[in-house]
Amino acid sequence: MTQPLNHQWRLVSRPSGSLQPSDFQWAASPLPEPGEGELLIRVLHLSLDPTNRMWAAADTYLPAVPLGEVMRGVAIGVVHQSRHPGFPEGAHVQGLLGWQEYALSNGAGLTLLPEIPGLPLTAHFGLLGHIGMTAYFGLLDIGRPVAGETLVVSAAAGAVGSLVGQIGKIKGCHVVGIAGSDDKCQWITEELGFDAAINYKSEDVPARLRAHCPSGIDIDFENVGGSILEAVLAQINLRARIVLCGLIAGYNATSPQPGPANFANVLVRRARIEGFIVLDYAPRAMEAIQDLVTWHQQGRLHYRIDEVQGLDQAPNALSRLFTGGNTGKLLVTLNHD
Amino acid sequence: MTQPLNHQWRLVSRPSGSLQPSDFQWAASPLPEPGEGELLIRVLHLSLDPTNRMWAAADTYLPAVPLGEVMRGVAIGVVHQSRHPGFPEGAHVQGLLGWQEYALSNGAGLTLLPEIPGLPLTAHFGLLGHIGMTAYFGLLDIGRPVAGETLVVSAAAGAVGSLVGQIGKIKGCHVVGIAGSDDKCQWITEELGFDAAINYKSEDVPARLRAHCPSGIDIDFENVGGSILEAVLAQINLRARIVLCGLIAGYNATSPQPGPANFANVLVRRARIEGFIVLDYAPRAMEAIQDLVTWHQQGRLHYRIDEVQGLDQAPNALSRLFTGGNTGKLLVTLNHD
Repeated sequence: MTQPLNHQWRLVSRPSGSLQPSDFQWAASPLPEPGEGELLIRVLHLSLDPTNRMWAAADTYLPAVPLGEVMRGVAIGVVHQSRHPGFPEGAHVQGLLGWQEYALSNGAGLTLLPEIPGLPLTAHFGLLGHIGMTAYFGLLDIGRPVAGETLVVSAAAGAVGSLVGQIGKIKGCHVVGIAGSDDKCQWITEELGFDAAINYKSEDVPARLRAHCPSGIDIDFENVGGSILEAVLAQINLRARIVLCGLIAGYNATSPQPGPANFANVLVRRARIEGFIVLDYAPRAMEAIQDLVTWHQQGRLHYRIDEVQGLDQAPNALSRLFTGGNTGKLLVTLNHD
Repeated sequence: MTQPLNHQWRLVSRPSGSLQPSDFQWAASPLPEPGEGELLIRVLHLSLDPTNRMWAAADTYLPAVPLGEVMRGVAIGVVHQSRHPGFPEGAHVQGLLGWQEYALSNGAGLTLLPEIPGLPLTAHFGLLGHIGMTAYFGLLDIGRPVAGETLVVSAAAGAVGSLVGQIGKIKGCHVVGIAGSDDKCQWITEELGFDAAINYKSEDVPARLRAHCPSGIDIDFENVGGSILEAVLAQINLRARIVLCGLIAGYNATSPQPGPANFANVLVRRARIEGFIVLDYAPRAMEAIQDLVTWHQQGRLHYRIDEVQGLDQAPNALSRLFTGGNTGKLLVTLNHD
């Protein structure tokens, strides 16, 4: 009888510039046996997020993934074998399970996922979980929208951005999204209810922002940075809030990117730029879940899953995040035979 | 009998790069007579501030000074003739009186200065007024220091910076100042009680910050920007606050200056960068005055006046602010014959 194997993607080199498939190595190790107080999780869905590149490249808000180790990733799985009283077999869990078929855990950092009527398991990536909480707390806690204000969202057809714009509408804002294709712009305006969209690949962003934000910009939910952030900073109102959620424009750069050239506008307009990381909000997750589920059930908050089949596709799929190749929440669904 | 004249500096060209004396023209106009509801103020002390250059160059948080008009400036004066019931002759007032010997006013934007026992009139520039309030509200309201935290102050021997560091000490912070000469560094450490000082002209700022801030940087009171801000951002702690008070490094630039290259650290460290303008705090002035005067009387808060004699010297004196030629509060005292 052959020993069962646990297939994995290991990080073998640090990305310089764009992530390359060769930065990862497909490997297999014997399937581990949970010891006392441990559990073995079968991974079902792996979340792909822009921050994955940071984890591969260097120490940031988490230590860099060590070379030779399984790539870090947020994933949803089912408890396969358990010797831990808190996690019964068959329960669904979420955590940093990594890019692999099975994950051994002692329960630390693991969340038991509630079954929510009418919602598939992947809603924990598309609507709830780290994506939903990023959108919810980033906009409401850092951005503090007031009805009637103008909100600009970059990467607006992405997993987080698409939720942010809809929550902005629920809070009474005038919402303008910036995205990278006409299809994406059509989706966020016609299906998600954004007031306007700008295709940054084919339109003049400063001019379109002026047209779509006649009263200036009060809140910027920033996922991109670079020239997009600069265009926004040029049109901010007094006491504007720039929610710094991501700076994907610079993630693949091989040298430090200059900050916005009109940075002094932050001073002149008494603006606030604030960075945040969703991990900090874990203790307040229930506030977000309650609102997000309610809004979804009311038909006011939609999400889209961009699903890739097969763990072997993970490195290729991740690169799509940096080229605008995804709409909505990108994830890999594992095919367990 | 010759008609009495009011000598003035008028702005005649917008600065490109450094302010030049030729951007101003010495002129004289007939001394105005106050009409009903007006008063004539004899200007005694003119404040010179880095923001003066912004006012001369372009519309910012105030409209640019129109070409051909008297240069805008904060000044203290004495009521010379009054037909306004709120401002008796002989009273001291402060406001945007301009670079001139006499100012006509209808009272709008004018503050009656209280006589504070033991304090000369110039204390309204060195300790109180817009300088004191900038230091007080910028540090306490935006920076929110907690005892034991590390505070870095740039332009630390300037009017605002020297107060900020001392207030930081009063609040229990570890305070490191950055200044441009050994004399300035000696003044802020030996006389003002800063824990350490860095001479940015002769020392390696990143290395000295590492040495003097072994626990990282929690608050940066930023007056300078450019490479100084970059060095600070590289060493900020989680949830650091960057109080954006001034960006003097870029004021004389002829083209937009890039923002900090390590701007992404704001995201990774969940930091907050917030701009503010002291004008916004006018309604809360009394809070500041009470504390500042008390601390000064207790011998815990010192200030230094860098006094230039004669209104004719104003353009030359202003340029010293951009070359590090002043220590403490720079002002011009007018010589009325």
